[in-house]
Amino acid sequence: MKLATYKDGSRDGQLVVVSRDLGSAHYATGIASHLQQVLDDWNFLAPQLQDLYDLLNAGKARHAFPFDPRQCMAPLPRAYQWADGSAYINHVELVRKARGAEVPASFYTDPLMYQGASDDFLGPCDDVVVPSEAMGIDFEAEIAVVTGDVRMGASPEQALEGVRLVMLANDVSLRNLIPGELAKGFGFFQSKPATAFSPVALTPDELGAAWQGGRVHLALHSTWNGRKVGMCDAGPEMTFHFGQLIAHIAKTRNVRAGSIVGSGTVSNKDWAKGYSCIAEKRCIETIEHGEPSTGFMQFGDTIRIEMRGADGQSLFGAIDQQIAALHESE
Amino acid sequence: MKLATYKDGSRDGQLVVVSRDLGSAHYATGIASHLQQVLDDWNFLAPQLQDLYDLLNAGKARHAFPFDPRQCMAPLPRAYQWADGSAYINHVELVRKARGAEVPASFYTDPLMYQGASDDFLGPCDDVVVPSEAMGIDFEAEIAVVTGDVRMGASPEQALEGVRLVMLANDVSLRNLIPGELAKGFGFFQSKPATAFSPVALTPDELGAAWQGGRVHLALHSTWNGRKVGMCDAGPEMTFHFGQLIAHIAKTRNVRAGSIVGSGTVSNKDWAKGYSCIAEKRCIETIEHGEPSTGFMQFGDTIRIEMRGADGQSLFGAIDQQIAALHESE
Repeated sequence: MKLATYKDGSRDGQLVVVSRDLGSAHYATGIASHLQQVLDDWNFLAPQLQDLYDLLNAGKARHAFPFDPRQCMAPLPRAYQWADGSAYINHVELVRKARGAEVPASFYTDPLMYQGASDDFLGPCDDVVVPSEAMGIDFEAEIAVVTGDVRMGASPEQALEGVRLVMLANDVSLRNLIPGELAKGFGFFQSKPATAFSPVALTPDELGAAWQGGRVHLALHSTWNGRKVGMCDAGPEMTFHFGQLIAHIAKTRNVRAGSIVGSGTVSNKDWAKGYSCIAEKRCIETIEHGEPSTGFMQFGDTIRIEMRGADGQSLFGAIDQQIAALHESE
Repeated sequence: MKLATYKDGSRDGQLVVVSRDLGSAHYATGIASHLQQVLDDWNFLAPQLQDLYDLLNAGKARHAFPFDPRQCMAPLPRAYQWADGSAYINHVELVRKARGAEVPASFYTDPLMYQGASDDFLGPCDDVVVPSEAMGIDFEAEIAVVTGDVRMGASPEQALEGVRLVMLANDVSLRNLIPGELAKGFGFFQSKPATAFSPVALTPDELGAAWQGGRVHLALHSTWNGRKVGMCDAGPEMTFHFGQLIAHIAKTRNVRAGSIVGSGTVSNKDWAKGYSCIAEKRCIETIEHGEPSTGFMQFGDTIRIEMRGADGQSLFGAIDQQIAALHESE
């Protein structure tokens, strides 16, 4: 099934069920108001939402209305955890190669992950508000999953069973803040502003055969200012699958329902497939020409991130955002 | 006023108001079930809780019962943000001096902060469950505040006005995992298991004159296996006050209601005041004798963290935990 959260002026919005073709939606009122409630009590509530989803797809839901992604908050407008990986090792290889550094052998067996902020996510069509262009504004197109409860010490296989929903993410990054921040030794902080998510979160069964081995075997499309810049396959080159990423978190603590886990920038070895973040394009330019020629994003720039199924239909709806300046009054 | 969350088998527990002397409590039912609700709608709900608190202190609350800290979850059993600073620069100086490294000049003007996990906090008397003693189990006694909404770009003074509640924290750390993790460059992750908080969260007015300049001017007592090891003054040596820490977070994003912000290990230049984490004791031993002689915590060890007011009364109740091994069945 497909779920979304409609804006209603409140912090957590209103849960809606969205039809498979993203054409119509129906409030989940009577079952649950918020997505977190569903994740907290999945086995009881998910089947009820599935029934409504089936009715909606059959055109029999009595109060259905046209689905409008612009009315969406992030499926979880705020969450208790956002842990993001860097699971496509090609991305790490590119970044390191561009600065003449080696990739440590352990990076192929031990996932890189960072803890992100989860108190204020952006909806799929919300502006990305940034204090200054000089911070080096970049998008990062990713896959993310939402988990149920996963106990401390879970194996990757057990952890994979904890995946409840799949989404797309734009993990906005402020590239020029990263070197100074990483030099301090405590990881990303100010360099990672609010993250945006796709209009729809869907259960893995919606992906059919494309959900395999804890990976999404489909292309992730990134369109920057109307120009298609990335058509990266999210499947085979994901070095660590989502079960491995969740198990990495669960090594020393319990992972609780509603945790969001990201894949990191989707990245392919074949440069013809483009890029899912500008930093990677700049690395390629540095490797080829000694310096980057593509600049980061400017105020007014747009970024669209979308994934289509084998039938060409948009699966999650599109993340479709504009970069905007922070005003004093905001 | 003083607030706590009682265990009731649910994920978020039940909000209770606790009397100033920690002797009695009263369910906040009818006003709010959960602390996050109160933070989401502070101006409307806090005055109602204050009225109940006044009745309780006057001995006139009709359904009051004896307060038992062992029934407490963390005041926020899960939160949308846990961002921890390292605001006592003496702690950083000690760690660096022990390994023969300099403290960069920027560390005195730019706070060190890391993003922690907030999906699964421990109650004040819950066991600290750890997979292995070999991970180097340490406590970290800290002060933490809970914020209201603070907008992106807020000044330290504006951010300080966003402080709603003050708590104590035990930011459990797995020391032997830290070097490898920091070497990866993405900051702490597995080295920071679940954090515990004091039974009670209180509004800053409860601290009277001890709440000054965004700092708590009282001693934080740490007792390890029944032996008092730390009596560190949390006030004058806090290099960055809470307004500065919150403004650091708000540099590139909005900080939303219910965010928890930690001070980092409370640390004093005067070694006679003891230590608020074992790592610091080991640094002192290394500086004095070339190597550490104090080991980290073992299964069965206890740690008690408490702060008393000028009148000698416990302000927050005590964090009082035992270290326990993870069992396969858990």
